[in-house]
Amino acid sequence: MEETQLEEPTTSEIAERLRMASDERNVAVIDELASHHPRALAEAVYRLPDEDVQALARLIGSGRLAEIVAELDAAAAAEVLTRLSPPVAADVLEEMAPDDATDVIDELPPAQVEGLLTEMTPAEAEDVRDLLVYPPDTAGGLMTPEYVAVRPHLTVEQAIAEIRRLAADAETIYYVYVVDDEHHLLGVLSLRNLLLARPGQTVANVMNTDVRRVTVDTDQEELARTFQEHNFLALPVVDAENRLLGIITADDVADVIQEETTEDIERLGGSEPLEEPYLHASVVDVARKRVGWLLLLFVAGAYTATVMRYFADELQQVVALTFFVPLLIGTGGNVGSQTVMTIIRAMAVGEVKLGDVLRVLGKEARVGVLVGGLMALASYARAWMLGVGPNVGLAVAIATASIVLWAATVAAILPLALRRLGIDPAVVSAPFISTLVDGTGLLIYFTVARVVLGL
Amino acid sequence: MEETQLEEPTTSEIAERLRMASDERNVAVIDELASHHPRALAEAVYRLPDEDVQALARLIGSGRLAEIVAELDAAAAAEVLTRLSPPVAADVLEEMAPDDATDVIDELPPAQVEGLLTEMTPAEAEDVRDLLVYPPDTAGGLMTPEYVAVRPHLTVEQAIAEIRRLAADAETIYYVYVVDDEHHLLGVLSLRNLLLARPGQTVANVMNTDVRRVTVDTDQEELARTFQEHNFLALPVVDAENRLLGIITADDVADVIQEETTEDIERLGGSEPLEEPYLHASVVDVARKRVGWLLLLFVAGAYTATVMRYFADELQQVVALTFFVPLLIGTGGNVGSQTVMTIIRAMAVGEVKLGDVLRVLGKEARVGVLVGGLMALASYARAWMLGVGPNVGLAVAIATASIVLWAATVAAILPLALRRLGIDPAVVSAPFISTLVDGTGLLIYFTVARVVLGL
Repeated sequence: MEETQLEEPTTSEIAERLRMASDERNVAVIDELASHHPRALAEAVYRLPDEDVQALARLIGSGRLAEIVAELDAAAAAEVLTRLSPPVAADVLEEMAPDDATDVIDELPPAQVEGLLTEMTPAEAEDVRDLLVYPPDTAGGLMTPEYVAVRPHLTVEQAIAEIRRLAADAETIYYVYVVDDEHHLLGVLSLRNLLLARPGQTVANVMNTDVRRVTVDTDQEELARTFQEHNFLALPVVDAENRLLGIITADDVADVIQEETTEDIERLGGSEPLEEPYLHASVVDVARKRVGWLLLLFVAGAYTATVMRYFADELQQVVALTFFVPLLIGTGGNVGSQTVMTIIRAMAVGEVKLGDVLRVLGKEARVGVLVGGLMALASYARAWMLGVGPNVGLAVAIATASIVLWAATVAAILPLALRRLGIDPAVVSAPFISTLVDGTGLLIYFTVARVVLGL
Repeated sequence: MEETQLEEPTTSEIAERLRMASDERNVAVIDELASHHPRALAEAVYRLPDEDVQALARLIGSGRLAEIVAELDAAAAAEVLTRLSPPVAADVLEEMAPDDATDVIDELPPAQVEGLLTEMTPAEAEDVRDLLVYPPDTAGGLMTPEYVAVRPHLTVEQAIAEIRRLAADAETIYYVYVVDDEHHLLGVLSLRNLLLARPGQTVANVMNTDVRRVTVDTDQEELARTFQEHNFLALPVVDAENRLLGIITADDVADVIQEETTEDIERLGGSEPLEEPYLHASVVDVARKRVGWLLLLFVAGAYTATVMRYFADELQQVVALTFFVPLLIGTGGNVGSQTVMTIIRAMAVGEVKLGDVLRVLGKEARVGVLVGGLMALASYARAWMLGVGPNVGLAVAIATASIVLWAATVAAILPLALRRLGIDPAVVSAPFISTLVDGTGLLIYFTVARVVLGL
């Protein structure tokens, strides 16, 4: 019996097994790897030298290679294809689902695309050309034309026979779409409905006409939300005239959700999202995605130095005040980071909406008072331990409470305010909030210190 | 034609429509809300006063109420049930899938559980009792016993007839499991296989015996990874003797993935994950989840004050050095946050594994040199603008480059090192890395300043 392990074998281990299997021309081992470690195998193939990829294609054939390559992100899959001769690469593309093949072709150098399309069979090339029209991150770019559609006047038995006929090519047979002669979408049937229907009923009798559908230009982020909310197995895609163009299946959307979540997390960390998986991205790419926000935040944070200089006299008089600068602004940044990550995630899963702004503000204000009070006690204790005198301690404690409350409320409100203004709330990253709280926190601290210490 | 909108109607709007429909006893409107805005409707029901929940139950019946309540998280669903009389609550539980009902019962006050179970029909209560044995975050806690199983000697036609008979109750009919007389799992068939099989073939002829399965104690996080990697619609759950106990469907796992990702993001933000959705969690709960890490990081960061005091003489001599403290440690924290979020996400989706540690280290070191060099130029420029003299500028620039390189490498290595030691890498949050870099960054800065300025 097979058991899943917490840590799968590493890519290097899979690569080693692949190399041995290739040397021994043992296709069964490669099949086993493909069924139990599909991603690691794909990654191992991606890292193979050119001549080994070509040898592998000859050994296992284009159908099996297509299945392996389909596990890679589109950019990596395209790179594997460029190492094959055009006829072999075209064979692999033909074996892929048209939606996946289109994603890969989108990543190929434009000069190679036309050559590959002419090597493909005309019908498959036509499918791909139709799909290449749509941006990859829309319903059109994600859909496949390989669905099952029937006419409303068929009987249930005729419909099942039609499904049997089309089953080998369709991406899913568990939903059957009902269309008229002009291919307008009329209804949907699950295979379960069909099996449960009484014989002799027509498709029109048993179909569900309240079909959830998306238009071809729907953004993939919105699509992901729809699938998450409703747990659909598939959704039909129509044009502006309600003509059925294709379907999107849940497994394609699962990849989109994973990709969008990764982008969200990278943005929350304060970098622009990578276009490729981390290990595939070049050093220059990674650096470029990071340095933009770093410089922007550096410039935005540069006024902290101005604030520090502005209060230079006070700092000279009471050097002990400087001791607490990193700790105070660090704590403010930490509270901001906690809050912004919780709120932006809750917005991403649709749990917090624009209309909730007052509830969120009220909650964060109360949380801020509680947490701020506790942290004020902690910072007073720290000041006492350092022996800086009760007045400095009091100033530090009051400043801590104020900074915590300020950080929690601003981190909660800013993402909602930006969404309200039509700006992507994901620009409010943890580093963004930290930087904002750094400067404003210093102002709060030194102002409190002036008042308490009478400077 | 229905179009999905970017911003769904708010819960308050849905609540208003629900109130009107209830007053007019218009069940059709409630059905429409349930099919187009299932989560918002569930949220609106959760916020209803007790007597309105009871009136709603009488109006729409327990079956419809069960569907609505199933959209809530288990804790919120349990709270709705406590507002109903035990017989009505038991009816609602009976209408839910046994795996969902079990999750809700797990959240009820123990005193009420036995009472509810005795109100349920014996068969349904038995299913729930069987499932209550398993921890909710394991395969056992997630599985449903409502699957379709057949014997291997049946013909394909007999199997399809059996599916028709069981279809109304089963959670999915698209996979059919093959078991022997002792219920050992022998194989699996998709409904597609069955429809494509030649008549007269037996189940044993067409079944796939290489079945991916999980044991009943498999952790939900591991399960989520298996589903993500393979795009299964369902997986069978077996005991240690390979007896089939239930199945887990992709939609249940999609909820788990969403929940686990939310927990990851909350941890990365530096708080303990909430056990309930943000808006349902109480102020005290939110504060408690945040304050633990805040205090820990405060104590860990408290040595920054010691470092500042240790270098008090240097700071007195060259007050200009203090101006750059927030900016330098802020930049270090930002780089750390960028890096740790990218690496931990890549680990969560299985893209970066333990074996990749050297590749990651090499990449981050090179990225750190590039980014550090650019940021050093920026900080030298800032120092020049403040007119603090070329030596302080040089010290600040060298310190910036060193801190960036240090932050990037430590943030990349620490999560992998912790995983290697068997510790959850998610403890390395953005605030954790910031705090770590704050103190060590100050040490780097003042040491560089001492050497460059000859203090």
